[in-house]
Amino acid sequence: MINQIGKLAKQASYQLAQCPTKIKNQALISIADLLEQSFQSILEANQKDIAIAKNQGLSEAILDRLLLTPERLSSIANDVRKVVTLTDPIGQIIDGSTLESGLKLQRQRVPLGVIGVIYEARPNVTIDIAALCLKTGNAAILRGGKETVNTNAAIISIIQQALNQAGLPESAIQSIDNPDRKYITELLKLDKYVDMIIPRGGAALHQLCREQSTIPVITGGIGVCHIFVDESADIEKALPIIVNAKTQRPSTCNTVETLLVHQNIAPEFLVKLSQTMADNQVNLHADKKAYERLKSGEATVELVSDEQLRQEWLSKDLNVVLVNSIDCAIKHIREYGSGHSESILTRNLAKVEQFVNQVDAAAVYVNASTRFTDGGQFGLGAEVAVSTQKLHARGPMGLEALTTYKWIGFGDDLIRE
Amino acid sequence: MINQIGKLAKQASYQLAQCPTKIKNQALISIADLLEQSFQSILEANQKDIAIAKNQGLSEAILDRLLLTPERLSSIANDVRKVVTLTDPIGQIIDGSTLESGLKLQRQRVPLGVIGVIYEARPNVTIDIAALCLKTGNAAILRGGKETVNTNAAIISIIQQALNQAGLPESAIQSIDNPDRKYITELLKLDKYVDMIIPRGGAALHQLCREQSTIPVITGGIGVCHIFVDESADIEKALPIIVNAKTQRPSTCNTVETLLVHQNIAPEFLVKLSQTMADNQVNLHADKKAYERLKSGEATVELVSDEQLRQEWLSKDLNVVLVNSIDCAIKHIREYGSGHSESILTRNLAKVEQFVNQVDAAAVYVNASTRFTDGGQFGLGAEVAVSTQKLHARGPMGLEALTTYKWIGFGDDLIRE
Repeated sequence: MINQIGKLAKQASYQLAQCPTKIKNQALISIADLLEQSFQSILEANQKDIAIAKNQGLSEAILDRLLLTPERLSSIANDVRKVVTLTDPIGQIIDGSTLESGLKLQRQRVPLGVIGVIYEARPNVTIDIAALCLKTGNAAILRGGKETVNTNAAIISIIQQALNQAGLPESAIQSIDNPDRKYITELLKLDKYVDMIIPRGGAALHQLCREQSTIPVITGGIGVCHIFVDESADIEKALPIIVNAKTQRPSTCNTVETLLVHQNIAPEFLVKLSQTMADNQVNLHADKKAYERLKSGEATVELVSDEQLRQEWLSKDLNVVLVNSIDCAIKHIREYGSGHSESILTRNLAKVEQFVNQVDAAAVYVNASTRFTDGGQFGLGAEVAVSTQKLHARGPMGLEALTTYKWIGFGDDLIRE
Repeated sequence: MINQIGKLAKQASYQLAQCPTKIKNQALISIADLLEQSFQSILEANQKDIAIAKNQGLSEAILDRLLLTPERLSSIANDVRKVVTLTDPIGQIIDGSTLESGLKLQRQRVPLGVIGVIYEARPNVTIDIAALCLKTGNAAILRGGKETVNTNAAIISIIQQALNQAGLPESAIQSIDNPDRKYITELLKLDKYVDMIIPRGGAALHQLCREQSTIPVITGGIGVCHIFVDESADIEKALPIIVNAKTQRPSTCNTVETLLVHQNIAPEFLVKLSQTMADNQVNLHADKKAYERLKSGEATVELVSDEQLRQEWLSKDLNVVLVNSIDCAIKHIREYGSGHSESILTRNLAKVEQFVNQVDAAAVYVNASTRFTDGGQFGLGAEVAVSTQKLHARGPMGLEALTTYKWIGFGDDLIRE
């Protein structure tokens, strides 16, 4: 079954690669319109998923993630319309020149081909990824969370209807509906047909993909992010940044998980931190030295374990660790960070230089919240995923990350000397 | 053991990432000078490897690949001096702007970190890769062919001496000397420390890396390259291109393996092809239709198998397949090609367009030899490998392919709205 899906996707990808922007945009507009017109069939399918999920006693948070409403569908349709307005990267000439040999060489941006995406139970991701793949002329094989099987099937049927209307092959966007996890493993081995795998989910999924995939994988989305409060930081300005980085949307990967506090600023800083965190309902998890100073403060605090320092809280919980120096802070980040987003709060230029140069992460900030690591914030127009690996794309991935290039050489009957 | 090598490499990579171009170049000059000054110790080690290889009855071709002479060492040393003259990509600002939020964001080119390279028994690759990694501020873990263990150990010792002289950590360039293949598998799992794996070798090695590695792998170097001789081709101009693509250096990956000949040009073309190939000692392997026409010609010809159409000859052997149309040629390339280099010989503009757009390969040529796919020819100044995958780098990989980027955001105490 998976093999057949892969084969069809590859065939569709050849047609998509040649497809003019105008046709791709027409298909996107059809998707948006059909999503709104057919909202009833989608909501019915969604209600089935919701009923099953309730039966299984899934949490309110997951139920809310699953739920579609007419308003949410409209908002998703409008997101698709936004993709229409983005510049199509396909066909761009990246660079070119006439070489010594006389060969006229240029690099042209082309689609990757077939992209496999494995993601959690979020119906909006199905449409989102389909739209971005379509815009960049890629075929996609989607495997959403098993809790959204009915919703996804209804959405995919609508996407395929739109493809059909635009004269594009329906197999351009396919999904794996069977919830059996063995199909994930099979997808990961389909290197004959699939050019890139994007896992969107927790650490275990990324680990599975790294270990099992024979296809290049873009891993990311795990953010154990730090803010280092240097001894020279302006405390009154530091606190709002920390509040923003922790509380604006605690469940996201660019949320700060650990504060590294220079010991010289700790006495004054920790008192104010405790008050501010209490005001914002943030629970603190401190190392021994910080705990001693925090325990009499306003905020709840307990001792943090090594394990907890390596994980995302995804909640209003914040680790606090005291460090003797910026070197210790950088060392901590190297050991515990996931290479996502790291920030320094300081007024010292030399420390800015050191932190920016020595911290190895997708995004490094100076006197700014880690929350900025986002395709929209970075002006990419869209976000496929946030990569924490170093090959191909790093940090927020926009449309360009769904492309590769081709070297094209024109000769006048040219041989190599 | 491997874990310790990885740990040391990662530590060294932090220092290398901060290293000014001047110091890196000094280390490279030291390597070149020491290679020439210490040629006797290297040649002695090399003689040991040669003696063992002779004892094991290895082929003359392999012995020649293993052999170092004072002249070859000088030539290798001069290649290192050439790397000194290349522009250091590290620290380049790729792009940047002030975002709506006020964040001053820029992308800066940084080293990948630690690069693992697994390669065949070629002593020159050891120096070559070490020089390119060093220039780009990356640490390297090298695993050369087991037939070069002694030579590589001597070379690595000299490289480490040069690193030492330049004040850089010796562990910046390390090699795995133990010929046991289990260390390759261990290296492929070292994702905690290693950022990229480059296999340089045959299809089996690439397969092993794709299957076993938990680290991103750049696969490539396998070239099942085609030339399509369109019905409109100028036969007199086509033949020298084919001779060049097949015979200039048959053992390379950018050599043509299969000619796809439009049936309308076949009657005249195949007669001349046979004569020309006979003159150049090239053996033909033809499909049934071509065989019928070629069997009475000058060149030796036998029937080609499906298996042979999927492999590199790496010798003066050339497949010939008749096709009914350019569509059939493109279909053949999709089925049998390795995504390396493909060329069309034609005078028809519409066919140029179709071939260039529809053939999915790292390099696509029009009226030119496939032999141009090469870092030197492409003006990259150096070649790390030739990638036939689509992520990160495609085609010849220069220094830039050994780098990634970091997003750096400067704020004036900035929070996300």
